[in-house]
Amino acid sequence: MKVEGIHYRSIWPIGTRAVGIIDQTRLPYAFATLELASCAAVVDAIRAMKLRGAPLIGVAGAYGMALAMNEDPGDANLARAQAALAAARPTAVNLRWALDRMQVLLARTPRNERARAAWREAACIADEDVEINRALGAHGAKLLAGVHARTGRTVEVLTHCNAGWMATVDYGTALSAIYQAHDAGVPLHVWVDETRPRNQGLLTAWELAAHGVPYTLVADNAGGHLMQRGRVDLVLVGADRVTAAGDVCNKIGTYLKALAARDNGVAFYAAVPSPTIDWTVRDAFAEIPIEERDGDELRFVAGRTDAGEGTRVRIADAAVPVANPAFDVTPAQLVTGIITERGIAAPRELAALFPDLRAAA
Amino acid sequence: MKVEGIHYRSIWPIGTRAVGIIDQTRLPYAFATLELASCAAVVDAIRAMKLRGAPLIGVAGAYGMALAMNEDPGDANLARAQAALAAARPTAVNLRWALDRMQVLLARTPRNERARAAWREAACIADEDVEINRALGAHGAKLLAGVHARTGRTVEVLTHCNAGWMATVDYGTALSAIYQAHDAGVPLHVWVDETRPRNQGLLTAWELAAHGVPYTLVADNAGGHLMQRGRVDLVLVGADRVTAAGDVCNKIGTYLKALAARDNGVAFYAAVPSPTIDWTVRDAFAEIPIEERDGDELRFVAGRTDAGEGTRVRIADAAVPVANPAFDVTPAQLVTGIITERGIAAPRELAALFPDLRAAA
Repeated sequence: MKVEGIHYRSIWPIGTRAVGIIDQTRLPYAFATLELASCAAVVDAIRAMKLRGAPLIGVAGAYGMALAMNEDPGDANLARAQAALAAARPTAVNLRWALDRMQVLLARTPRNERARAAWREAACIADEDVEINRALGAHGAKLLAGVHARTGRTVEVLTHCNAGWMATVDYGTALSAIYQAHDAGVPLHVWVDETRPRNQGLLTAWELAAHGVPYTLVADNAGGHLMQRGRVDLVLVGADRVTAAGDVCNKIGTYLKALAARDNGVAFYAAVPSPTIDWTVRDAFAEIPIEERDGDELRFVAGRTDAGEGTRVRIADAAVPVANPAFDVTPAQLVTGIITERGIAAPRELAALFPDLRAAA
Repeated sequence: MKVEGIHYRSIWPIGTRAVGIIDQTRLPYAFATLELASCAAVVDAIRAMKLRGAPLIGVAGAYGMALAMNEDPGDANLARAQAALAAARPTAVNLRWALDRMQVLLARTPRNERARAAWREAACIADEDVEINRALGAHGAKLLAGVHARTGRTVEVLTHCNAGWMATVDYGTALSAIYQAHDAGVPLHVWVDETRPRNQGLLTAWELAAHGVPYTLVADNAGGHLMQRGRVDLVLVGADRVTAAGDVCNKIGTYLKALAARDNGVAFYAAVPSPTIDWTVRDAFAEIPIEERDGDELRFVAGRTDAGEGTRVRIADAAVPVANPAFDVTPAQLVTGIITERGIAAPRELAALFPDLRAAA
């Protein structure tokens, strides 16, 4: 994706010394890149959400393993790095998936070749992410074009959180579909949920503005009202983990929008690359860990001063008790379809699209 | 309600010269009172949400009429004042109700007695509000005690926006029930929705803390997840307008919580004084005007600096398109009961509680 005319991926190797990322905690107020030169730096960046988005976290995990192999290619460090990276964010499955893939490869690679193999494999995972998200976006764009063909009107999409190019290596998931439909001439307008407490909707707004897609920012509270008034054609989100049965674990608040979609006859789609599908989970509610994040994410709001400098305000005292679950589960019965790189499937048909992956899991 | 040991109402006459209010835009960061010495000042205070909450706005409207009668007791000014006050916030019906009541009285009062009559009537409306909210809170408290008796556990309540004493003259609506239950020894814990974009949840948190009621602040996005996990016994909110059929128009986002309540078998109650019931509306969706407020309410977030000074941050540029509907409608089929000063009724039984008011409308 281009930022002021320059093509960026959201993560890139700097030789085999470090990885570069865009510091997402400074967006949309400032565009700044960071170098992560150690596995520990990758862990910290994931925890602090300097990089975020399930697909991107997976790729970052792979590069974190490569950095770890630079530091010490021994078995003990391999296990340590895998455990430290996996613990950085527990809910999204892409991280675990990428780490498992790296571990399997590296375990059978001689120690003195591990670093080189790790950098190669991480780059491969990154390239695959780009291709998968391009492909799933093409399927999603066809869906959006179909809505337009049926209604003859601007397609009204509501999205939650950021499922854009910066949540992946490039293209995005939900926004990949939107970008490709927009580029194909489908008239679109996107309702962008603010997505408290981290306000990732501001990232989505920034991405959409940069791409020239019309959008309107709304409070998370507004989506139900918009659907009641017929102002949303479909809800389109990404996901952090989707089960084989089609349950969608995504940013907290997604479930509320899925309920409103059902109540108003609005379609609800999740766009996910196959590494986001967890074929092993039977009971999404019992088995997917829901990350509980620091209450200060709610107590402080980041923004800018009148002079344009990045700052934050405290909206609640340290003594105010806060709960901050970061994800929720939208049960499959509220999901119209899952958009993947192999096409779009109703939840119950998802497994049939991926017999190979399901069997391997 | 007491603030640091001193009993306050949220609005009070200052002789017949002005009315005093608590500036709610400065809470919870600072407790400051304001004098409103003209009808225009009351209009501005309502628009700017220096005072807010359907019942309180109604009483403020009555005092605004009294101030207008100080200024010019003529028929033209009476009509002008009524129109200006009614336009200040269109959704809540209490304002219209109070203005109509004042107008009927004043129209039949000789001009030279209008100011005195208006101040007397406004004080009467204020006193009635206190008594009504005490009474409805007593009914609500019995409901909460019943939940505790049934479960033997702490009663987990989720509330949205601020339906506390400062949304009324005293006691509150939803929080009146909570305060009275707490005072009666019912163990309670309240999940407090932040309530973007104006963050009235922070007012609720401040009130609950002052009263010693255990609570936890959560993002608006979290309520569905909490209900899925069995952590909410009932949703309890106020309302800006309730129809005779039991449709509940309340702060934007209420509908999403009602959907989640239904999906998880959680009860959903609205606590409303009878002046909040609009007996004339047949179709809540077609007839209740939903106020669209300034997008800057979303673009800026009020809070404090590290040094404790009141300030705000900009989270979105002026160029970011924002939609900011302030209310939504929860249809009666999602509502378990309406808590009123005459008792608790299922939506379809609401009219039977108020045959007199319904006949008069």
